[in-house]
Parts: sequence; structure tokens; C-alpha cells
Amino acid sequence: MSNTITAKMVNDLRGITGAGLMDCKKALTEANGNVDEAATILRKKGAASAAKKADRATKEGLIESYIHVGGKVGVLIEVNCETDFVARNDDFKSFVKDLCLQIAAASPVCVTREEVPEADLAKEREIATAQVQGKPPAAIQKIVEGKLEKYYSTVVLLDQPFVKQPEKTIKEMLTEKIAKTGENIQVRRFVRFQLGA
Amino acid sequence: MSNTITAKMVNDLRGITGAGLMDCKKALTEANGNVDEAATILRKKGAASAAKKADRATKEGLIESYIHVGGKVGVLIEVNCETDFVARNDDFKSFVKDLCLQIAAASPVCVTREEVPEADLAKEREIATAQVQGKPPAAIQKIVEGKLEKYYSTVVLLDQPFVKQPEKTIKEMLTEKIAKTGENIQVRRFVRFQLGA
Repeated sequence: MSNTITAKMVNDLRGITGAGLMDCKKALTEANGNVDEAATILRKKGAASAAKKADRATKEGLIESYIHVGGKVGVLIEVNCETDFVARNDDFKSFVKDLCLQIAAASPVCVTREEVPEADLAKEREIATAQVQGKPPAAIQKIVEGKLEKYYSTVVLLDQPFVKQPEKTIKEMLTEKIAKTGENIQVRRFVRFQLGA
Repeated sequence: MSNTITAKMVNDLRGITGAGLMDCKKALTEANGNVDEAATILRKKGAASAAKKADRATKEGLIESYIHVGGKVGVLIEVNCETDFVARNDDFKSFVKDLCLQIAAASPVCVTREEVPEADLAKEREIATAQVQGKPPAAIQKIVEGKLEKYYSTVVLLDQPFVKQPEKTIKEMLTEKIAKTGENIQVRRFVRFQLGA
């Protein structure tokens, strides 16, 4: 089967996933030359390997900022990785810049779901529950959970769709960068100032 | 007496204080042509007029950032003024940039004395008191107050000496800008990120 793997396929797959040459060849062989399937295989591997790296210490990284034209909105962010070598890498730098733009444009309030204030979550749940009054009880919980997912994708940076490529979440982008660099990467903190707000 | 006021004197005084032409002439006349004394007169007037403006609403302004070379330290600041006209002024912009540099270099923890956490202040007072044990009681309070002043000038942005011109405090610079623009100006908030700290 591996005879059907062309250089173009490998290149396409690398373009899509950012994975290494050998990993792409292997995934294409496993997927019988189907690029989409190979990409899925690599994504799963990337996610699995990212999860494995999640407790590795991140002490290096970058602090970056973005000021929107006119100086009415500004963002400051700290993104950590394991080595200064990755922190100086252009791909890492542009990822951090993209995160700044994301925060300026989409105004998340925190990095992870765990950081959503308990009171905010309780309020959202109450509103969502009130909205579905009168539906069959079996459906209510499901609808409420769906509305909370929607809420998370609004306020949680990692759950937001990436503004430049809305078919991806920020968490998916992060997982790709972890796969690509081979290092644990964490968004440690950010602030967003809006003039007078 | 006003015959002794030359154009050079007026220009020197404007260079020092940034005050308007007529204000400089008036102050020089009042000071019998002594430029230093005239500057003091203008500073007092500036401070008095700044105090008068302190409760005027500031809804405009700028958000600015500074990232230190290498991306290990970053600052985000919001400085407010009364009109967008002043916010767009180059002098205001460069003041805001200077504040960013100040925060990056001198690591203040808050804008005003009122914002120093109660617990931090109590701890400083305790340390200062312990250090002066054995001195005559009358002297102790004075020494402790002196040490607290020193502490304020370390952690409070407005009380810090300006890193580029240590003979001035940031509050004095702010007062000058208020006098110069004729608008109330306030440092609303800032954050300083240091990698891994």
C-alpha cells in the first residue's frame, strides 16, 4: 500500500497538520493514502501526546501584547513552554500573537473552564433552565448542557473558535503546537483592557 | 520690573515647565526675572489647578503596552483623560509610554497609596518598628514613618522617582501634564507580567 503514497500527499498532509515528514508518511500508509483520514490519525496522536505532556514543567515562554488601532483595547498575555529554544521559535511567536488578537477580538474572561467563576456559571445555568421551562423534563437537562457548552465557547479562551479560522478551537490550535514543538505549552494568564470599561 | 523679562527667559521657563507663554511672562514678572523662582511659582499654580481638576470625569485616554526585549517582561496600562483630543496628543502619548517603561523597570505594585494592601502595610510597619528597637521612644515613630515613606516610594507608582529623571516623582510628572493639557489625567490601572513570576 505504501507505494501509493506520493510526495504531494505527504506535503499536503504536512501543510494541514504541521507534523513531521516520517509521521506523515506513517499516517498516510496507515490510512491507505487517504489524506483526510491520515490527518485525523495524526490529530488523535497529537492530542494523545499533548495530554501526556500536560504535566511537564513550563518555565520558559513569551510575554506579548497587542494594542488595537486607536489605543482603546489592549491585551497582555503570558504563554509558557519548556525551553527558551521553543520560545524563540517564529512559529511559537506567531501563535502567541494570534492569541493576543483572539483575546482582543473575542473578549474571553478566562483561560480554562475551571476558571469560570462559580457564581457566573450558576447564573448561566439558572437562565438556561428558565428558558426551557415547559419542555419535557428528559429534554431539559440536555438543552441546558448544550447552552452551557455555548456559554463556555463564549467566555473561555481555550473553548473559543479561533477568529481567523473558526472551524478550529483555540484548544485545538494549542494541541497542534504541542504536537509540532514536542513541548508542553500553556496559556498562563492574560488581561484585556478596554478603555473606560 | 517687567522690562527685565527677555524672550530667552520666557523660552527657558517654557522649556522647564511646559507652561503657556502668558503664564510664563506673568510668573517671571512676579519673580522679578528669576527663572527658578518663576518655575516654582508655576509649579505651585500647576499643582493647585491639578488638584481642582482631580474630580473631573475622565472617560477618554489610551491603552498602551511595552514588552521588554526578549519577551520576559510586559506591561499593559490604561491612562485616562477628559477628551479624545488630548488622548491623541503626542505629548500625552509619550507620557503614557514613559509610564510603561517606568512600570517595567521599577515594578510598582499599585497606582496610589490607598491601593497598598492593608496586610502589606502592617507587615512593613512591623518590620520597621522591629528595626528601630532600643532607640528613644520619641524617635521611633518618626523613623518608622520615614521607612514607610521609603516603602511607598518603592511600591506605589505615583510615589516612585521617574526612572529617566529621578529628581521627579511620577506624581509630579502627572501634575505637570495636567497643568499642560488643562485636563484631569488619571492612571486608571496597569498590570506587569514577568515570565514565570
